[in-house]
Amino acid sequence: MKITRYFSDLYKVPRNPSFKSLTEKDLKYFESILPSSCIVKENLESYNEDWLSLVKGNSSLLLRPKTTQQVSAIMQYCNQETLAVVPQAGNTSQVAGGVPVHDEIILSTSSMNSIFKFDENLGVVWCDSGVVLETLNNYCMERGFIVPLDLGAKGSCHIGGNLATNAAGLRYIRYGSLHGNVLGLEAVLADGEVVSDLKALRKDNTGYDLKQLFIGSEGTLGVITKLALLLAEKPTSQYVACLGCESYEKVLQVLSLAKKELGEVISAFEFLDKPIYDLILKNVTSTRDLLRTHHNFYVIVETSGTNSEHDLEKFESFLEKVTLTGMAQDGILAQDEKQAQEIWKVREGTALSTKMEGHVFKYDVSLPLQEMYRVVERVRKRLTEEFCAGYGHVGDGNLHLAVATKNPEKTAKALEPFVYEEVQRLQGSVSAEHGVGLTKPSKLKYSKTPQALQLMKQLKTLFDPKGILNPYKVLI
Amino acid sequence: MKITRYFSDLYKVPRNPSFKSLTEKDLKYFESILPSSCIVKENLESYNEDWLSLVKGNSSLLLRPKTTQQVSAIMQYCNQETLAVVPQAGNTSQVAGGVPVHDEIILSTSSMNSIFKFDENLGVVWCDSGVVLETLNNYCMERGFIVPLDLGAKGSCHIGGNLATNAAGLRYIRYGSLHGNVLGLEAVLADGEVVSDLKALRKDNTGYDLKQLFIGSEGTLGVITKLALLLAEKPTSQYVACLGCESYEKVLQVLSLAKKELGEVISAFEFLDKPIYDLILKNVTSTRDLLRTHHNFYVIVETSGTNSEHDLEKFESFLEKVTLTGMAQDGILAQDEKQAQEIWKVREGTALSTKMEGHVFKYDVSLPLQEMYRVVERVRKRLTEEFCAGYGHVGDGNLHLAVATKNPEKTAKALEPFVYEEVQRLQGSVSAEHGVGLTKPSKLKYSKTPQALQLMKQLKTLFDPKGILNPYKVLI
Repeated sequence: MKITRYFSDLYKVPRNPSFKSLTEKDLKYFESILPSSCIVKENLESYNEDWLSLVKGNSSLLLRPKTTQQVSAIMQYCNQETLAVVPQAGNTSQVAGGVPVHDEIILSTSSMNSIFKFDENLGVVWCDSGVVLETLNNYCMERGFIVPLDLGAKGSCHIGGNLATNAAGLRYIRYGSLHGNVLGLEAVLADGEVVSDLKALRKDNTGYDLKQLFIGSEGTLGVITKLALLLAEKPTSQYVACLGCESYEKVLQVLSLAKKELGEVISAFEFLDKPIYDLILKNVTSTRDLLRTHHNFYVIVETSGTNSEHDLEKFESFLEKVTLTGMAQDGILAQDEKQAQEIWKVREGTALSTKMEGHVFKYDVSLPLQEMYRVVERVRKRLTEEFCAGYGHVGDGNLHLAVATKNPEKTAKALEPFVYEEVQRLQGSVSAEHGVGLTKPSKLKYSKTPQALQLMKQLKTLFDPKGILNPYKVLI
Repeated sequence: MKITRYFSDLYKVPRNPSFKSLTEKDLKYFESILPSSCIVKENLESYNEDWLSLVKGNSSLLLRPKTTQQVSAIMQYCNQETLAVVPQAGNTSQVAGGVPVHDEIILSTSSMNSIFKFDENLGVVWCDSGVVLETLNNYCMERGFIVPLDLGAKGSCHIGGNLATNAAGLRYIRYGSLHGNVLGLEAVLADGEVVSDLKALRKDNTGYDLKQLFIGSEGTLGVITKLALLLAEKPTSQYVACLGCESYEKVLQVLSLAKKELGEVISAFEFLDKPIYDLILKNVTSTRDLLRTHHNFYVIVETSGTNSEHDLEKFESFLEKVTLTGMAQDGILAQDEKQAQEIWKVREGTALSTKMEGHVFKYDVSLPLQEMYRVVERVRKRLTEEFCAGYGHVGDGNLHLAVATKNPEKTAKALEPFVYEEVQRLQGSVSAEHGVGLTKPSKLKYSKTPQALQLMKQLKTLFDPKGILNPYKVLI
């Protein structure tokens, strides 16, 4: 509780007085356009609080429309009445992006969850924005495809929320950005206007690519209601290995070799440093040491392909080179599904392991590969008494830096703005994949030029002149 | 000449009277801010005329700045004076997108052509927008990478023009869209403001992804001056085959099998129908029949990978299945570089072969795969006396439809709006990869909703209130 309060103070933003407070008349209007099952006025605690318990909003109304037309009618009314709205998907944001800060109406996409079209020839699926990522992936898997996106929250997060936040995750190194994989999108603008293009063509150069604006704008420019996604062929062969390296430089050498040797079949390249690896083994039950020896760095490499024999041959040859050249000192190639899961379990234990050590400060930054780990070392120098670790999607230049502490106020001062200044100095990004949400608008200046921020503000004003869509987020 | 005139009439747009005509005072100003080598006032014919000779503009001034600052100074002045400007890259547009329509100042990027940074670990190259695509690719090839974009005009087109038009080409099926591969971009807005983000991070979720707006906006929202591009590893193994199929349905079966069997190594999947194949053999010297037998359809499949033995094994197994199941009746796998070039020479002969048959109407449309060839058949039914053929990037749903005629006026009436209405009915795109330019703004209504067009216009007004950037193009 103490810790939650610490953050609540940190992210306190004054309510925008231009927003109207909800009245009985408004409720009556919503009751006139929506079935009663779409209107929730009680027990809103879990919708008011974000996943990391950074914020507790004070909304008294959650609307969960079932159709685009209903979303449109809601937005039209809210715009006319200047009622603020926070679109909420699976509420798994790491930056408190999907919860009300004050009394915003919560517009949940959870009742729009149908997968309504699938094309085997194209490898494209069409669905509502409220479909849970894992559900969508299972649906596609049964049909020989996978969603080109995989992340820890897949059991709760919505695909629409993934688009809104431009989510990335584990297999980004293989399948790339949603900016490349989203083929169609439907969104409701702040004034209720519907912009829809669900033709899902791989190629369509007929003017400005409007859907790109909604991808990554975190619900501040429109509410995504439907989408069409380009899928990847379901791999028929998958291998995963864990390697132990003595230095971060060796990790980079392994990465470089993996890109060359595993080329088109590489599907994940993750790293963990010794502190987080050891902490996971200590704090997360059902994990075990993967290697017989201890190392300063651990690398997880995965391949996904269409020919098991070929992939294994490539992987074994890669592992041989890695060992012979001394890039890695030890390694294990999972021999079956169980061993593969053991490896991934360690990687997935990062969040839980740090949580048990006290209050956790987590940074999700992009940095030049060569410099990435030096930032962790510099932070460690400043915080000799705290737990400090680095891990993440090194194949994509994405570092997660975690600091666990019993003394958040003091630690915060040592960490900020130091970490952000380092990121700025090294021309990195203050948010690689988690987005801006409520917690990072004030940090944008470390990553964006004043000209870019100005243009963002102009776009926001164009799309949402009254600022009612997801207020207090992304831009301040 | 007759044919050029036919088109010139077709694309005649009245001059926007709000644009100022160039004066001596303006010239003096440009002379004061630019070296004399950057100012060209004579022999502008080739810059005034587009690649397909559809348009002859009447510009009397070409500026070719060397730096972003110079571009900025030019735009600032032009905006202040309401002087219209057409950004011009390699002038290889298929839709007259890069030439003046009236007396617009031509702003050429040809003197901004330095490749200024390369990162082997990331596989990223940074360069000016005026670098020729082939030059850039050669530079990257020497360093173990390739530009994830390949198209016929590579010897002339600029990488900045490729971005501005969201160019696609032959290997799109493998490497996907520039929306996914462009990591950084610098652009000068209509008022001279510079928006720059060249950090080139694979992951950066810090607000609206502004660069996406410039990709595919054809120079109407800003002038791209610099960029950072994610490269693909240079393949160490490449195979290409030509197959003969008896029906379009069989072509689709081959495509489906290729995706499954060749999976991660497939790098091109093209098709040609019998009329265009035969015409190429007849009209294009140094091409020869690739197969011993004749077929209704020809398919070209290419793989690019990192292991020659594996790729060959996959390709041979694929070819065996294709033949045994009767999907293809004949086929040839190139045994060496020479044979591979012979196959590609046929594919590349399409443009030249039709040009020799009279006036050519060419359509570049996206269509649902199942329906794609039926459109060609329907057009053929309407034009029993004209040459009519279909070919293109079937792997991406992109059809090129070519009609050659001695009687363009009559043929035009039979073709339009018929072709566009077919595209609309089938929920396709009236421009898959060539863009809108000057020739297709009036066709956008067949692909875009009124809401989308409205939003595009609002964006144009936000970025370029006076409409001076590439006027008469994209939007009308």
